[in-house]
Amino acid sequence: MTPAQDRLHFVALDVTTDDRDELVALLKAWTDAAARMTEGGSAGPVGAVDGPGNAPPDDTGEALDLPPSRLTITFGFGPGLFVDADGNDRFGIAARRPAALEQLPRFSADVLEPARSDGDICIQACADDPQVAVHAIRNLVRIGFGTTAVRWSQLGFGRTSTTSTSQTTPRNLFGFKDGTANIKAEETEALEQHVWVGAEDDPRAAWLTGGSYLVTRRINMTIEVWDRQSLESQEQFVGRTKGTGAPLSGGEEMSEPDFEMKGSSGPIIPVDSHVRVVHPHTNGGVRILRRGYNFVDGSNDVGGLDAGLFFIAYLRDPRTHFIPLQRAMSKSDALMEYLRFTGQALFAVPPGVGKGEYVGQALFDA
Amino acid sequence: MTPAQDRLHFVALDVTTDDRDELVALLKAWTDAAARMTEGGSAGPVGAVDGPGNAPPDDTGEALDLPPSRLTITFGFGPGLFVDADGNDRFGIAARRPAALEQLPRFSADVLEPARSDGDICIQACADDPQVAVHAIRNLVRIGFGTTAVRWSQLGFGRTSTTSTSQTTPRNLFGFKDGTANIKAEETEALEQHVWVGAEDDPRAAWLTGGSYLVTRRINMTIEVWDRQSLESQEQFVGRTKGTGAPLSGGEEMSEPDFEMKGSSGPIIPVDSHVRVVHPHTNGGVRILRRGYNFVDGSNDVGGLDAGLFFIAYLRDPRTHFIPLQRAMSKSDALMEYLRFTGQALFAVPPGVGKGEYVGQALFDA
Repeated sequence: MTPAQDRLHFVALDVTTDDRDELVALLKAWTDAAARMTEGGSAGPVGAVDGPGNAPPDDTGEALDLPPSRLTITFGFGPGLFVDADGNDRFGIAARRPAALEQLPRFSADVLEPARSDGDICIQACADDPQVAVHAIRNLVRIGFGTTAVRWSQLGFGRTSTTSTSQTTPRNLFGFKDGTANIKAEETEALEQHVWVGAEDDPRAAWLTGGSYLVTRRINMTIEVWDRQSLESQEQFVGRTKGTGAPLSGGEEMSEPDFEMKGSSGPIIPVDSHVRVVHPHTNGGVRILRRGYNFVDGSNDVGGLDAGLFFIAYLRDPRTHFIPLQRAMSKSDALMEYLRFTGQALFAVPPGVGKGEYVGQALFDA
Repeated sequence: MTPAQDRLHFVALDVTTDDRDELVALLKAWTDAAARMTEGGSAGPVGAVDGPGNAPPDDTGEALDLPPSRLTITFGFGPGLFVDADGNDRFGIAARRPAALEQLPRFSADVLEPARSDGDICIQACADDPQVAVHAIRNLVRIGFGTTAVRWSQLGFGRTSTTSTSQTTPRNLFGFKDGTANIKAEETEALEQHVWVGAEDDPRAAWLTGGSYLVTRRINMTIEVWDRQSLESQEQFVGRTKGTGAPLSGGEEMSEPDFEMKGSSGPIIPVDSHVRVVHPHTNGGVRILRRGYNFVDGSNDVGGLDAGLFFIAYLRDPRTHFIPLQRAMSKSDALMEYLRFTGQALFAVPPGVGKGEYVGQALFDA
């Protein structure tokens, strides 16, 4: 795992074919194109400019002069790939659907838009240059034409989590450091325990061993309202200081919060503060790997910005590592007043592809 | 003028007050905040973290730890600021409205969305880091709360024009180099002739001398259809090769196109190719200063990406330097088949602010 790049293009696709061979052929073509592009190459053997003139190029060309920009490409499979809305086993893989890979529940206060939620397959491209991330997604979508169609897509900037001990903690659009307690790439043991799916986790889904679950939540922030709250209130909502990111109980950013410390009225870190509600201490020790991004998608219909946080988390099991956490947050978190959840999706991310393999091979072959 | 930065946040605002003093007070506050932020400071004297706890901070905080990132902020005034839709002189400045500052005509094939068009005031923030550009716009919008409201806003990445002789030409989402013939920052004489408003240009608008007009066009590209065209066709539409960007008449990127050179059937650079239709030779020598950006705004309703080019041009007079060019393009350009114009706006951009002045001072005082 590498420190997270700063730009994101995420797409969720619906599979429009019912032909298993066609889907497998696409996964093979994607694997090939992804490998080329992450090395800085074009999406296909015949690039944008060196092909026969009378055929469409294998690459769209907008990243021709750009460096690889640390591009990474991640694929995930949604519940609908295994069993469609009518209960059909579309591609003969229903028996291998992991028990945890079900459509997530709707949480209280969710205002999810179907056009920003779910999907049969997801592709996440991260890079230091948005043009490189966009180029990757655009070409993979192009290659999928006729087999998949875009369901929704999301751009992001300014990763919102520390993902490596070598990175400083970035800030979300509330202006606060975000992801201080995130699992870092160097925490091998925590990754094993909380992020990677273990060999015994699910007998139906051996293909997912070493992979992970990916949860997305599109979190609109009512930033115009937030911006009119006092500094003190903002810090009470979050449970940390805005400047250094230290818990209100004192110390520095990385200091452990002291939830017992008394203030003038009740604990100095309020019981409904974000840091307390989602802290591992409050949630049976559960930790997640966050790789979220800020977004601004133009304006909303009340004279403000359509902005917020595109939450992305990798975790070992959504039933233990996400649903309880989100329920607690929806129920008790003081920040909820400033959040609107407008999209949500869950995918199973197979482990890295070995030499000569294609993405998801262990799921389809066997 | 500096080489263009790589990230854009552009906002168009409606003025919601009819009180001239309130508007002038806002312009003063904006001038102050813009000056602070372009120097890497916070938006107000009391930043996000050093204010009294019981008041909202003067800065939202998300750029706290980030460098200035070459942030520039540009303000412009739309026709509606001078005369509203009912013909009222809202702020006593109707007599100073430049004759050229009228709502642009609708061009054939335009599918403009009112929610992505026009506006009383625009603010353009460019920076090397999108979080810095977003922070600037967000804080200026916040300062304007109660006096202005967001009408539309647009993020962009990957500037699409060479803006300095020290930059290589970037590519648009058609995969072609874009803006090869753009006026460069070093071409002082061309800037005088084609971009900056001259002292004698408009007796009503002395305040605009040394300023410019800013045209925006949100150009959706039907990239999925484009991607299925042969390399040859793509190059015929553009009139340049995809690889080097050289005109089809030969040479290198910067070589002058030879529109007379014969091919096997007609000129080798097709008469309806983009390069020919918009070339200064074809348009009475008119040149513009382009500072456009690529955009991807999620997905559209036909299973593709909502993507394209956010065209921004600075020019001396829209009546001579934009409207005829756009008419020619709408009528004859082969590229039109792959373009949908979904937004449009025109603003007058006053010249740079002198020490102790506020943005637009020459328009309001006098």
